[in-house]
Amino acid sequence: MGFERLLADRTSAMDVNVIREILKVVSQPGMVSLAGGIPAPESFPMEIMRDLTSIVIDKYGSSAFQYDPTEGFGPLRDTLVDYLRQKGIQSKKEDILVASGSQGVLDAIGKVFISKGDQVAVEAPTYLGALQAFTPYEPEYIRLDTDDNGLIPGSLEKVLDRGGIKFIYLVPTFQNPTGRTIPLERRQEIAAIIKKHDALLIEDDPYSSLRYRGTDVPTLKSLAPGNVVYISTLSKVLAPGLRIGFCAAPEQIRKWLVIVKQGTDLHSSTFNQALAAEYISGGFLAKHLPNIINLYRPKQEAMLAALDNYFPDQFRWSRPAGGMFIWAEGPRGLDMEQLYWKAVEKKVAFVPGKYFYSSPGEGIETMRLNFTMTDEATIDRSIKTLSEVITPP
Amino acid sequence: MGFERLLADRTSAMDVNVIREILKVVSQPGMVSLAGGIPAPESFPMEIMRDLTSIVIDKYGSSAFQYDPTEGFGPLRDTLVDYLRQKGIQSKKEDILVASGSQGVLDAIGKVFISKGDQVAVEAPTYLGALQAFTPYEPEYIRLDTDDNGLIPGSLEKVLDRGGIKFIYLVPTFQNPTGRTIPLERRQEIAAIIKKHDALLIEDDPYSSLRYRGTDVPTLKSLAPGNVVYISTLSKVLAPGLRIGFCAAPEQIRKWLVIVKQGTDLHSSTFNQALAAEYISGGFLAKHLPNIINLYRPKQEAMLAALDNYFPDQFRWSRPAGGMFIWAEGPRGLDMEQLYWKAVEKKVAFVPGKYFYSSPGEGIETMRLNFTMTDEATIDRSIKTLSEVITPP
Repeated sequence: MGFERLLADRTSAMDVNVIREILKVVSQPGMVSLAGGIPAPESFPMEIMRDLTSIVIDKYGSSAFQYDPTEGFGPLRDTLVDYLRQKGIQSKKEDILVASGSQGVLDAIGKVFISKGDQVAVEAPTYLGALQAFTPYEPEYIRLDTDDNGLIPGSLEKVLDRGGIKFIYLVPTFQNPTGRTIPLERRQEIAAIIKKHDALLIEDDPYSSLRYRGTDVPTLKSLAPGNVVYISTLSKVLAPGLRIGFCAAPEQIRKWLVIVKQGTDLHSSTFNQALAAEYISGGFLAKHLPNIINLYRPKQEAMLAALDNYFPDQFRWSRPAGGMFIWAEGPRGLDMEQLYWKAVEKKVAFVPGKYFYSSPGEGIETMRLNFTMTDEATIDRSIKTLSEVITPP
Repeated sequence: MGFERLLADRTSAMDVNVIREILKVVSQPGMVSLAGGIPAPESFPMEIMRDLTSIVIDKYGSSAFQYDPTEGFGPLRDTLVDYLRQKGIQSKKEDILVASGSQGVLDAIGKVFISKGDQVAVEAPTYLGALQAFTPYEPEYIRLDTDDNGLIPGSLEKVLDRGGIKFIYLVPTFQNPTGRTIPLERRQEIAAIIKKHDALLIEDDPYSSLRYRGTDVPTLKSLAPGNVVYISTLSKVLAPGLRIGFCAAPEQIRKWLVIVKQGTDLHSSTFNQALAAEYISGGFLAKHLPNIINLYRPKQEAMLAALDNYFPDQFRWSRPAGGMFIWAEGPRGLDMEQLYWKAVEKKVAFVPGKYFYSSPGEGIETMRLNFTMTDEATIDRSIKTLSEVITPP
C-alpha cells in the first residue's frame, strides 16, 4: 500500500530525525556517551518506590487506577500549589494542569496556539524537544539572540516590536543545551518587556532544582505572573519514566490546554500522579533531592576540571551552577559534526550543537556535553579523548 | 490579558464541550448515572496490584522508571504480539506502538494524516472520543450509514467511490455508543471493499474482550491486515488510570505514528507499561478476565430485562452480546434532551444520543445507556423511572 500519499502536510514536512540517526551509534558496546540528556538511574529514589506504591494503594485504593479529570489528580494539584510556593510562584489549584511529561504541556501549547505560519520566538540555541512539540503545528520560528547570560533582552524587545509573535519559548535556568542561566536583572527586564507588549511567554524549568552552587534566581513566572505559563517536571527529581510534567498557567489559557489535552490523551496516569503526590506531600522529595545533587555535583566538577585541563585554548565553554549540560564552542569554521564521527571512532559520543538551532547553518562549531550518566573517572578520560580529537594536529 | 486573540484557528473552532456541560449534574448526590462509559472499580484486579508493582520493581529495577523508546516498553510489545495472536491478529513487535490510552493512538492518527479540510469517514453515530482526537486537526467528517448490524457496506463503497477519504474510523465490536457488532459476512465485505480501494481503516476495539454471550467475530485487521490499523486498550481489562493503549499498524504507518508521538509525550509511562507487561505475560489477565465478565453480565442482563419490562412499545433498543452500552431509540420527533432534564429531576442520568453524531440534527430521539457502574437492583429501578419519564402521559 502506498499510504505515504495519505500523510498530512505537517507530516510530510517532518524530518526524519537526523539527531536520532547520528546518535544510533551511541548504543554501540564500549561507547562512552556524553550525548544523552537523561537522569542517572542512581538518582531515582528506588529504595522508597515499593513503599510509595503501598502508600498510594492503601490511601487511594481503586481510585488511583480509575479514569480521572483531564486537569490532573486532585491531591497532586494541591501539593503542587505548595511546591510552587516554595519556588516563589503563587498559584491556585485551578491554575495547574498535570500532563504526560513537560513534553505533554509543550504539545498542548502548540495545539492551542499555533496555526500554520504563526510566529514563535525561541532562543538560539534552544531545547530540541520543544521544537519537536511545536513543529507539527507548522510555526515559523523567530530567532532570539543569546550570549553567556542567555536571552538578550534587546533582541526580545526588537522581535516583539515587529509584532505577530504568538508566544516566546525560553528555558531560563540551566538551559538545555547550553546550561546557561539568565541573571536576575535580565529577568526583570524581560518581565517588563513582556508586560509592556502584553506578550505570552512559556517558561520551561525542568532543571532549577538541580543547583550545585549559588542561590536560586526568581522565576519569570514570579516576575510577570499574568504573562507566563510556567512548565516543570518531576522527571529530574523523581523519575522520567512516570511521565509527570505540569504547568501553572493563567486561567483563560489553562482552560484551553485542558480542552486540547482531553483530545490528546484524556488525562495522564492516575497511579503515577498519585505516586508523585505522595512523593512530594510525604516529604520524600525534600529528603531525596540532596542525594541527587550530591550525585551530580562531583560529576559536573569533574567535567569542568577536565575541560580546564585538556581542552585547547581556542575553545570556550559554559560553567553552569546546576543542571545537566555544559556547552562548548570551538573556533569559527570548525565542523563539529565531522569531529563527532572521529570521536565516535574513539568511543566517545556527544551532540553536535547545530541540532539545537531552529535555523540551519548556525552553531556548526558547538557541542553539548552531558555528565549525569557517567562516573568521574570516565568523564576525565573521555574529555581527554575529545580534546585529542578536536585539537588540530 | 486578552490571550484569546492568540488562539490557533483550530482552537477557536473547538466547542466548549456541550456533553460535559449537560453531564455536570451527574455528580449531584443521589443521582443514578447510566451516563458514564467507565469500568466499575470492582473490575480492577486490586488484589494483585501490590504484587504486580513488586514483580516489576524486582524484575526491571530502575529501568522501569527511566526514559524509554517512543515505540513502547520492549517486554510489553513482545507480550502484545502473543496477546494479539490469541485474537487472531498476526503481528511483529515492530508493528506495535504503545500509547497513552487508545486516545493517544487516535491523536497520533489525526496528527499524521489529517490536514485541514481532509475527509474522514465515520459511522453515524460514532465514538465521541475519536471525534475529540481528530477535530483539532480540522477534518471534514463524511457520514457512513449504519443499521442494527453496524456499518452498511454499500454506504462505505459509495463513499470510497467518490474518493478523497483519508481514512475510515470504525468501532466494529460492541460499539460505543450503540453496542452493535458488525457480523462476519459484513466484515468480509468491508475487508474486500477497503482492499479494492486501497483504503486505510482504523479499527478501534476496546470492548471485544467483554463478551457475555456467543463467540468472537474475526477482527477487520485479521481480514485485511495491510489496510487496517488495529487499536485496543487495557483500560477495560486492567485499569484505565494506567493509560495503556496500543495499536498494530502497517510498518510504514507505525513509523510516522512514532515520530508524531515523540513530539506529543516522548513515550508513555514506563512503569505502567511494565505493570501491563507482567499482568499479561504473568497470566493474571487470563485469570482475571472471567471475573470482569461475571461482574458485568448480570448487570447487562438486568438492564435488558428492565427495558423489556418497562419501556414503551414505541421504543427499540440494541441487544449487544458484550461491551458496556445499550442504545435505545424512541419514536421520530421525540426530543431526548428534553427528556434528559426530566429524568435528571428524578435522579437518573443517561447520555442523549445526538451527541454521538458528527452532523447536527441527527439522533435527536436516541439515548445511550451504560450498565457497568450500577448494581442490578438500581438498574431495574432506574430503567423503570426512565420509562415513566419517556412514556407520554
